[in-house]
Amino acid sequence: MVIDCHGHYTTTPPEHDAFRTAQLAGETPPPAAISDDAIRESIETNQLRLLRERGGDLMIFSPRASGMGHHVTDPAVARAWARACNDLVHRVTGLYPQHFAGACQLPQTPDGSQDDSIAELRRCVTELGFVGCNLNPDPSGGYWTSKPMTDPYWYPLYEAMVELDVPGMIHVSSSGNPNFHALGAHYLNADTSVFMQLIEGDLFARFPTLRFVIPHGGGAVPYHWGRYRGLADRLRRPQLNEHVMRNVFFDTCVYHQAGIDLLLQVIDADNILFASEMLGAVRGVDPETGFHWDDTKRYVDHAALSEADRRKILELNARRVYPRLA
Amino acid sequence: MVIDCHGHYTTTPPEHDAFRTAQLAGETPPPAAISDDAIRESIETNQLRLLRERGGDLMIFSPRASGMGHHVTDPAVARAWARACNDLVHRVTGLYPQHFAGACQLPQTPDGSQDDSIAELRRCVTELGFVGCNLNPDPSGGYWTSKPMTDPYWYPLYEAMVELDVPGMIHVSSSGNPNFHALGAHYLNADTSVFMQLIEGDLFARFPTLRFVIPHGGGAVPYHWGRYRGLADRLRRPQLNEHVMRNVFFDTCVYHQAGIDLLLQVIDADNILFASEMLGAVRGVDPETGFHWDDTKRYVDHAALSEADRRKILELNARRVYPRLA
Repeated sequence: MVIDCHGHYTTTPPEHDAFRTAQLAGETPPPAAISDDAIRESIETNQLRLLRERGGDLMIFSPRASGMGHHVTDPAVARAWARACNDLVHRVTGLYPQHFAGACQLPQTPDGSQDDSIAELRRCVTELGFVGCNLNPDPSGGYWTSKPMTDPYWYPLYEAMVELDVPGMIHVSSSGNPNFHALGAHYLNADTSVFMQLIEGDLFARFPTLRFVIPHGGGAVPYHWGRYRGLADRLRRPQLNEHVMRNVFFDTCVYHQAGIDLLLQVIDADNILFASEMLGAVRGVDPETGFHWDDTKRYVDHAALSEADRRKILELNARRVYPRLA
Repeated sequence: MVIDCHGHYTTTPPEHDAFRTAQLAGETPPPAAISDDAIRESIETNQLRLLRERGGDLMIFSPRASGMGHHVTDPAVARAWARACNDLVHRVTGLYPQHFAGACQLPQTPDGSQDDSIAELRRCVTELGFVGCNLNPDPSGGYWTSKPMTDPYWYPLYEAMVELDVPGMIHVSSSGNPNFHALGAHYLNADTSVFMQLIEGDLFARFPTLRFVIPHGGGAVPYHWGRYRGLADRLRRPQLNEHVMRNVFFDTCVYHQAGIDLLLQVIDADNILFASEMLGAVRGVDPETGFHWDDTKRYVDHAALSEADRRKILELNARRVYPRLA
């Protein structure tokens, strides 16, 4: 079985966008009326088709990351938008329970209370059967005004994640800062920055069972693995494999063979989860290979891996990190 | 001959730090009185010793990057500090002209006028014989309040760089934002972000001979080379090799063999410049190899490279990018 731990509902029917547009115009619209057929159409022609074509079985599915819009400061807007997005993902998991499991969007706001996020997480996990959440380390959307992820500001949410036994995927949303292109800079910067925050801090001493998935292949981290090992040493922090890497996992959203090969070479197979991010940042065909850039299973299949490690990466690690998949 | 294009004077005599301390306390101190012997001692026991031990010949040498302190908003302070730092580097290049060539710190301030930077660049190149400059894309120090590097805000400086025929190394300074560790996040994020800005923009159509070195192995870029190729395609930008990579170069400050191997595999040899960043971010010995993490020549020596490509990376590209080395 092949589990893709990182997919987004980027192909929602247009009524969902209209809801958001109305909301941002100051209205309090009712949830968009979307038929099961419209959802089926949006999924079967996109994520489910590609999942099948590429040999995937199950995708951990969350709302569109760039649409989370946590920079909008009104908590009521954040609550209603997260609920609408998560309910739509739940419709998908209800229609295709064999192929999609939910990961929720949290109603974060810049420096806002964690209470709303905790309530929505509880609702999604206990009522909708979701198995994880996306956690935005920069709700400001490119201005990085919040506290590092090791700060007590985040602890109440971590307590709920631990209690519910769900991991968080570290995932920013859109960037309002013109210095940071969302897909080409902001996402990767966030992955890299949070990893370094975790080296500096000691978060997992306090939360030994808390688990983070750092997507996009861990940002810049595996490429600079020597730098991070050396920095941990210089800062008198524990070795990475005895510290951060007990609780942190990287996905395989790296869109070329050489990148995947590096990831698999330097990071322990126990810390890598298969993922494609589709339909995500990069959707076309690489003219050099004739295959889609985000067909990451192809790269993993071509990598030099033992069968035991391949099985961990494609399925078993996801089951360990997301135990509610069972 | 082996040219290391990225070294910093991180071992300045303590009088130099005292100058800065006095300056930040509101004084206008005279330049620190530092003897030639003190400079020799600081260089011969550190950068020059390591350069010799590791088989390097010439280092392009600039002031300590994390000390540039461009977030200090007073232009007079920035001018005096840049001048003091550059004059000290000039002392080194005067004592060891065979081994060190200067790259200057610019007196940038957040959103400040480019006039001071242009004047100091001219002074360093025409009077001190410097061959390049460090250019900080985020003078705010982790808050990213300035315009992207493709914005006309930067054009006057680019005009001077083109006229003087010197490249700029994209290099931020310290981070005041607790989300970004300087060495483990801010530096790499800046490298990554500027590369993406250059994809989005069309800067080199206006400045066809402007050259940037993106250090630290290009940040996250080579590891995500497929992502960038795919994003260029999705954003209907030119292919990278026909656009950004005509004017952008990555250095080899990547501190493990697998990272260097990836860099050399995916990036054209014409776009890679040998560098160590020493004495920089990571100074210890990798217990897995028994060698210093930042002994990057060792990785390049062990990589599968043709002799022609090796010579480009170790010397010829640096001569092309920094023509004033001649």
